[in-house]
Amino acid sequence: MPKVAIVIGSSSDFPIISNCVKVLKEFQVEYDVRVLSAHRTPNEAIEYAKMAKDNGFDVIIAAAGKAAHLPGVLASNTTLPVIGVPIKSSTLDGLDALLSIVQMPKGIPVATVAIDGAENAGLLAIRILSIKYGELSKKLEQYSEKMRKEVLEQDKKISKEAKEI
Amino acid sequence: MPKVAIVIGSSSDFPIISNCVKVLKEFQVEYDVRVLSAHRTPNEAIEYAKMAKDNGFDVIIAAAGKAAHLPGVLASNTTLPVIGVPIKSSTLDGLDALLSIVQMPKGIPVATVAIDGAENAGLLAIRILSIKYGELSKKLEQYSEKMRKEVLEQDKKISKEAKEI
Amino acid sequence: MPKVAIVIGSSSDFPIISNCVKVLKEFQVEYDVRVLSAHRTPNEAIEYAKMAKDNGFDVIIAAAGKAAHLPGVLASNTTLPVIGVPIKSSTLDGLDALLSIVQMPKGIPVATVAIDGAENAGLLAIRILSIKYGELSKKLEQYSEKMRKEVLEQDKKISKEAKEI
Amino acid sequence: MPKVAIVIGSSSDFPIISNCVKVLKEFQVEYDVRVLSAHRTPNEAIEYAKMAKDNGFDVIIAAAGKAAHLPGVLASNTTLPVIGVPIKSSTLDGLDALLSIVQMPKGIPVATVAIDGAENAGLLAIRILSIKYGELSKKLEQYSEKMRKEVLEQDKKISKEAKEI
Amino acid sequence: MPKVAIVIGSSSDFPIISNCVKVLKEFQVEYDVRVLSAHRTPNEAIEYAKMAKDNGFDVIIAAAGKAAHLPGVLASNTTLPVIGVPIKSSTLDGLDALLSIVQMPKGIPVATVAIDGAENAGLLAIRILSIKYGELSKKLEQYSEKMRKEVLEQDKKISKEAKEI
Amino acid sequence: MPKVAIVIGSSSDFPIISNCVKVLKEFQVEYDVRVLSAHRTPNEAIEYAKMAKDNGFDVIIAAAGKAAHLPGVLASNTTLPVIGVPIKSSTLDGLDALLSIVQMPKGIPVATVAIDGAENAGLLAIRILSIKYGELSKKLEQYSEKMRKEVLEQDKKISKEAKEI
Amino acid sequence: MPKVAIVIGSSSDFPIISNCVKVLKEFQVEYDVRVLSAHRTPNEAIEYAKMAKDNGFDVIIAAAGKAAHLPGVLASNTTLPVIGVPIKSSTLDGLDALLSIVQMPKGIPVATVAIDGAENAGLLAIRILSIKYGELSKKLEQYSEKMRKEVLEQDKKISKEAKEI
Amino acid sequence: MPKVAIVIGSSSDFPIISNCVKVLKEFQVEYDVRVLSAHRTPNEAIEYAKMAKDNGFDVIIAAAGKAAHLPGVLASNTTLPVIGVPIKSSTLDGLDALLSIVQMPKGIPVATVAIDGAENAGLLAIRILSIKYGELSKKLEQYSEKMRKEVLEQDKKISKEAKEI
Repeated sequence: MPKVAIVIGSSSDFPIISNCVKVLKEFQVEYDVRVLSAHRTPNEAIEYAKMAKDNGFDVIIAAAGKAAHLPGVLASNTTLPVIGVPIKSSTLDGLDALLSIVQMPKGIPVATVAIDGAENAGLLAIRILSIKYGELSKKLEQYSEKMRKEVLEQDKKISKEAKEI
Repeated sequence: MPKVAIVIGSSSDFPIISNCVKVLKEFQVEYDVRVLSAHRTPNEAIEYAKMAKDNGFDVIIAAAGKAAHLPGVLASNTTLPVIGVPIKSSTLDGLDALLSIVQMPKGIPVATVAIDGAENAGLLAIRILSIKYGELSKKLEQYSEKMRKEVLEQDKKISKEAKEI
Repeated sequence: MPKVAIVIGSSSDFPIISNCVKVLKEFQVEYDVRVLSAHRTPNEAIEYAKMAKDNGFDVIIAAAGKAAHLPGVLASNTTLPVIGVPIKSSTLDGLDALLSIVQMPKGIPVATVAIDGAENAGLLAIRILSIKYGELSKKLEQYSEKMRKEVLEQDKKISKEAKEI
Repeated sequence: MPKVAIVIGSSSDFPIISNCVKVLKEFQVEYDVRVLSAHRTPNEAIEYAKMAKDNGFDVIIAAAGKAAHLPGVLASNTTLPVIGVPIKSSTLDGLDALLSIVQMPKGIPVATVAIDGAENAGLLAIRILSIKYGELSKKLEQYSEKMRKEVLEQDKKISKEAKEI
Repeated sequence: MPKVAIVIGSSSDFPIISNCVKVLKEFQVEYDVRVLSAHRTPNEAIEYAKMAKDNGFDVIIAAAGKAAHLPGVLASNTTLPVIGVPIKSSTLDGLDALLSIVQMPKGIPVATVAIDGAENAGLLAIRILSIKYGELSKKLEQYSEKMRKEVLEQDKKISKEAKEI
Repeated sequence: MPKVAIVIGSSSDFPIISNCVKVLKEFQVEYDVRVLSAHRTPNEAIEYAKMAKDNGFDVIIAAAGKAAHLPGVLASNTTLPVIGVPIKSSTLDGLDALLSIVQMPKGIPVATVAIDGAENAGLLAIRILSIKYGELSKKLEQYSEKMRKEVLEQDKKISKEAKEI
Repeated sequence: MPKVAIVIGSSSDFPIISNCVKVLKEFQVEYDVRVLSAHRTPNEAIEYAKMAKDNGFDVIIAAAGKAAHLPGVLASNTTLPVIGVPIKSSTLDGLDALLSIVQMPKGIPVATVAIDGAENAGLLAIRILSIKYGELSKKLEQYSEKMRKEVLEQDKKISKEAKEI
Repeated sequence: MPKVAIVIGSSSDFPIISNCVKVLKEFQVEYDVRVLSAHRTPNEAIEYAKMAKDNGFDVIIAAAGKAAHLPGVLASNTTLPVIGVPIKSSTLDGLDALLSIVQMPKGIPVATVAIDGAENAGLLAIRILSIKYGELSKKLEQYSEKMRKEVLEQDKKISKEAKEI
């Protein structure tokens, strides 16, 4: 069974990350959400990363704001792929979190998605899982098709609306 | 057999991306390097992405500079995980490529690494592959151990040098 | 008859782009508004660009936010001039969309206007059309004259108000 | 006969803009290169813009660095489409020129291309001219085809080279 | 009599610039507020700058947002000192206006103050005028003294309040 | 007795800095809050810095926004460690204050914390004091433990909530 | 006699500021160049500012890099107009110095010119002096005329060269 | 005896940090330089931080580039004051390292100095130590005096040179 670990640095990041949870649920992928801080609970965070593979996780998603070290710290303590979600906080529009996550030095990669891009973090996890769990590829194709249809419907509606401006 | 597709937008990106190739070779992972431009050869790029899974690839790595659309365009035409490498060009220090790759809108994720971070793109591909090909986990642990030892050696050398300043 | 294609990446971009539609209406230029996503409906977007010239369009206006690939993708599939409108989204104040649109690599140009500059996109389309449809030059002169008069009226009003501070 | 006016703010911008000239020559489009400064020769610059249409020009390309007002000043004095090329100078990596050109306020658009993107400025001019001078569309298709072939050749060469790393 | 010309690019800039007017009134310096756009009323703006000295003005203050060319255009048409006030607009937090005003190329200087810094623009004008109109130096000293006292009062109040937290 | 001087450039900075005061109170460290402006009361600010050590202070915390010179000016007039807190103001999201404080030239250091990071300024002061006042080390350990427990409680709550999405 | 004080924060800023000196010499304006650091010689810097008016100076030009406090510190200790020149240093391309100088808070203005814009600082000083010393207005007009002619000559040369590409 | 721990993330950071070592030597403060990576040797880095106080260190200085987590990771594992030095790397001019270090979230402060500001890191350490080791205050005053004299000498030299331009 595919299983994804989701770690946030603070409970205030939960509203954003819940969009990621919804994606995983939609794809019927098991998940675990944890609040673990790279700075305030470093031991717990490290321990969680070290045990993640043995605990049956295939992918870790980590979200944090400001000087967001959490994804990098987890990636340093596991060989699993780690997806980083930069969270926008009250200053600098998320640029601090983005650079703190994406600019990882040589040796320890973090798969970074857009600022507040929790839904895409979920979808990236599914894509990664799909190379092992073949049925997820099909679901991804269906998901793409669903998105496509939503756009086509928007297209119908808007192209009509636009004529009436 | 694990197999990685590497796509660059121009042959001028090859010197950077060759660091990624070296990582894949070190892990004995098969790879294919292609020059396909999202803008100048859109059909070929799309076709390559559409066929990548059937052609036995598990992961796509795409590198591009400036308004770097290549990773996103490939990701729109496959369900495989796509890793994006922003390439620094002559202006803006790579920030344009970084934002063009990482800020993907909802629905199509790109796993972004650091600007010019080709080596980490390779390591991220290995991490992703390792959830399917178990032996790569071991190699990743050995790689970590090797990096660890390199740092420890640097440590010995520098801590001695520093005393003689 | 001059005819302009307007493409947006998502229906959420419509409120901004409607300012462009109003300009085209004011100049009595025919238009078509479509929702086509470079990422979620790549085939439809490409097909639309490829057929745009044959379908009688002279100019394409494309608006998108974040990693805004739409204008570049359309420009890669047509020889018509493509005008890009970067849309501000919830983070980074539109800088991501601006750089993703304006920093197009050598070979495929996009005529970029200001962030959320939909009205100017419309006026740029009119300027371009005016080199073929002479009567639009006259209308542009009248439009300039109208803007001039609005400023002169603001001038009268404000220079008076200022005296009473 | 299609004719393009090219204006630079200083002779130091000529090496960059000569890439634009080469494109126009390749498409056999007539051009005129002038050095006119929005700040040091405002009268001459304005006069040139005002007469551009009567002098048979269809498009103006203007390049300038730093607080680059030239494209906007020209656009304020003509109804022709004006293409702006931000030039990178010794500080801020061209960001100042980019924002000074692209962020034009409502009413006067400038079709902005990438920082130092002189070649794309030429190609954008050709695209604009092509809506009036049909034979240029064909040449643009041939140009695209030539670019496509160059990429395909790079592809052959690099995919081979990569195997030998 | 000292006299200051204040020019704004749009009536929407008036609420900000009124803080400048208040400073001038406090120093009993005559002023004239005008709405003149570098882009929409270029002739009027240039004429105003050209005549400013003959019309008895000593200093020009110009405020504008986005690609803010107004201060530079005025400075190109007068030898009077021109003070530029970058106005924050709906995107990029005023950075576009700041760079468009402060990064003036060699030959034409604009004395730039902070984004939305209308009050300081007024005070800078007074400082400049004070080298010619000696009595303003005294008033500036009194103004400094008034500011000093306000801070000292804040100091008393806050140092007390802080003890009661 | 450990004693910390807190200086703000304006009473409008007090709501932010009060978070720092609360930390000092929690650690039972004596403090003094003053409003002293580097620009409007330079003499008082300098005098305060010069006397700080003799007045029994061990550390100075200084907060200011925009072109935030206060921490640097204080540091130039004392040998005590000075902690700088950049305050976010109405434009540029605090980046101006951050760079004005952290980029101090060679010779005069300011210990800079995050934009609006008043609480961390307090904690940094405590860490500094702890090297002299040993009992504060213990309190810092207890504080860390308290933070750890808060995270663990958030963890419990959120990991449960997440299951019910 | 018009007299300008030029202050730099370090002798390393002299090569840039010498361009300012040359302008003043060309206009036959007396000047004094001093190295005074806001941080390393605060007393001397303040004293110099306080005495500047009595010593016969009309304008102060101050140049500094990084967290460039010098112009603001001088402006806080004089009522003379102070012109600030941000100097580019080894990191951040001069943005730190620009923001540290231009973003002065309410009450103390600094007339900021472009990064490394020493020549424009000189010209701005001349413009300011010209409101008191009438003959400088004439010289400024001649200077403008000279610049105009230089551009016209560049124009002749380049428009010819361009034809031969 | 005062003792400072200096930790760098890679031996490539040593040339910069050696400027810090020289300062400590000049103040006759004992130091230890170590290469410990937050990502490649997380256990060693954490262990070093945990033992630093017991090993007699009063202050830790940590330097790192890119997504620079090292100072924050050390600060999470000690109650000692930690000084962070952002190192400029090949892209983004050190902004990534600056934000990754200075924007630490609530609870764990890092005393950040300028990008590549190794000398100031040393001086900040001395200031911190001086609250415990009184003789260092005297040395800091002498150091300030030495800097003051250097500036005064530069002043003499430059003010003379400037007259001869």
